[in-house]
Amino acid sequence: MPQALTAGKLLGLQRLANADGRFQMMAIDQRGSLQKMLEAVLNRSPEYDDLVQVKTLITASLAPYASAVLTDPVYGYPHSVTLLPRDVGLLLAAEESGAEQVGDPPDRVSSLIADWTVEKAVRAGADAIKLLIYYHPDARPEPRRHQQDLVRQVGELCVRYDRPFLLEVVSYPREETDNKGIEFARRKPSLVIRSAEEFSKPEYHVDVLKLEFPANLKFCREYCNGAFDGVAREPAYDLKQVQEFCNAVDEAAQVPWVILSAGVDIAEFLIAVELAAASGASGFLCGRAIWKDAVEFYPDEEAVTEWLETEGVYNFLRANAAAENALPWFEHPPFEDLESLTVADAGPDWYRNY
Amino acid sequence: MPQALTAGKLLGLQRLANADGRFQMMAIDQRGSLQKMLEAVLNRSPEYDDLVQVKTLITASLAPYASAVLTDPVYGYPHSVTLLPRDVGLLLAAEESGAEQVGDPPDRVSSLIADWTVEKAVRAGADAIKLLIYYHPDARPEPRRHQQDLVRQVGELCVRYDRPFLLEVVSYPREETDNKGIEFARRKPSLVIRSAEEFSKPEYHVDVLKLEFPANLKFCREYCNGAFDGVAREPAYDLKQVQEFCNAVDEAAQVPWVILSAGVDIAEFLIAVELAAASGASGFLCGRAIWKDAVEFYPDEEAVTEWLETEGVYNFLRANAAAENALPWFEHPPFEDLESLTVADAGPDWYRNY
Repeated sequence: MPQALTAGKLLGLQRLANADGRFQMMAIDQRGSLQKMLEAVLNRSPEYDDLVQVKTLITASLAPYASAVLTDPVYGYPHSVTLLPRDVGLLLAAEESGAEQVGDPPDRVSSLIADWTVEKAVRAGADAIKLLIYYHPDARPEPRRHQQDLVRQVGELCVRYDRPFLLEVVSYPREETDNKGIEFARRKPSLVIRSAEEFSKPEYHVDVLKLEFPANLKFCREYCNGAFDGVAREPAYDLKQVQEFCNAVDEAAQVPWVILSAGVDIAEFLIAVELAAASGASGFLCGRAIWKDAVEFYPDEEAVTEWLETEGVYNFLRANAAAENALPWFEHPPFEDLESLTVADAGPDWYRNY
Repeated sequence: MPQALTAGKLLGLQRLANADGRFQMMAIDQRGSLQKMLEAVLNRSPEYDDLVQVKTLITASLAPYASAVLTDPVYGYPHSVTLLPRDVGLLLAAEESGAEQVGDPPDRVSSLIADWTVEKAVRAGADAIKLLIYYHPDARPEPRRHQQDLVRQVGELCVRYDRPFLLEVVSYPREETDNKGIEFARRKPSLVIRSAEEFSKPEYHVDVLKLEFPANLKFCREYCNGAFDGVAREPAYDLKQVQEFCNAVDEAAQVPWVILSAGVDIAEFLIAVELAAASGASGFLCGRAIWKDAVEFYPDEEAVTEWLETEGVYNFLRANAAAENALPWFEHPPFEDLESLTVADAGPDWYRNY
């Protein structure tokens, strides 16, 4: 299978990962969730400048520890170009924050940022394009197909503009009352595994999958006594089963994959990274688990930065350490190793046919 | 004046320079001149694979010492994507190697690589576009305008695709018998100064000028006793005058500028870099002065690499040291400093209007 990649995708992937091929990426593209965090802190609707300022402070302090930074073109990128160290890759988000809910139980339907395009992202210097979709393999056919079509559409644009396509897939409860309970915890493994399988199909042109951890560790026997939040829960599975879920995700993922944090606390996230890495994940793309506590100090910018430069950096260093056993992306199927990776159709006519 | 840059140009410039804003760039985009070197070494016409192999060896050994690498899309880039460290910027050459000669005395007319485009270069991941033109300010109107139009054309494409435009200007003798004698040495300062002035005009959209050193140091009183090649010459100017030529170039250049090596030996090049840097140059973009002696060992690839990893690296480190007093690009007009550099029109509507 393809030990050859197009030039733009190959260069882009190299710029996202560290020199060893492991992804240690920071997400600061949050919009809706950051607005909510700021609203709670400020006791008012945050303004454009509030989001810009928080993103700027976080990027300035933590980008140097990332192999790549994912940001958004609305509040993030135009204000942080000079904050990105030259050896840190750039991902830009393509999707509108949030999703429309359709039907009952509600399925979710995503859309792209209006008045923004993949072409603009590439022009602005993005090394890769990120799309987040909410997805449930058992959603009604129409919303399910809408989400699949959206992925295919962005995948084709990434082929046209020759940039890596990183797809983030987030599941949601349908029959369960919420995403925090044991029912949804029980369903999570199959949701993540089936989504990984679906979006590994070549028709979507996904280069890296950004996946949820395929279990809720708060319901894992070894941690369910309140290890993370002091709340005791009944167990849904044990650690050995969770490791099997991770293995199943890796088997389903026909492209390199990374773990997202979905806002869990750092202690839980570090375990997730280690478990996923042991099963073949190539690292993480993580936001809130690393920096969310900084937001509580806003608008005291000095205090925000003080937290970031101490606790935030420490979190990042621990996450990077947890990813040290991750599988280099070029050793994950469909690839074999770095040495035999080449540019597709490299030869005397490459520049003509490219 | 513009303390604001578009996002793609700003990101691209940061990726070309080192973290301090100094350009320590390697050129390995030679085609015609490398063919000639290889022909002399091999006693036959070099084939496609010979050029590929030499470029590959040089890139593999020396790219890690560069802030950015300039290569070509024909022999270089498709074979060296995985050889570029992730913190090394990428420039791709736009011009066909060599030039057409028109009239008597011959003026020179350049063209772009057929079947290659700026759009392809950006798609393939280029952080910046480089165009080389041969130029004489006193050329006949038609060839002169042709060259100016070509620069303007590429400049406009770089605006459209939002990548830094690095323009290399190389002069040529018209009234003089060749470019090695004292007549041309005497004319060189004014040629370089006038070219810098011309292509600093905003209509060309040049972001960085790659210029010849504005004197032939072999005819500088302090070195004309054969310091570089054992050949004694009469002096055309002294070091103080040469420093004034450099100052005049810096005054003429309304954008950051770097020095090219034009294949002189490393000892001469190091002095040129130091003198130019002292006058306000922002570094160098240098090929043959650093690596040319390696080619003589081809096709003994081990010997080529042995030379590169010892003498070649030493040359590069010395060139980098010579550029340490260069002016960071963001401190050269039209810019003032890094802190006040912003993305043009950054604000709530940036992503819409970009």
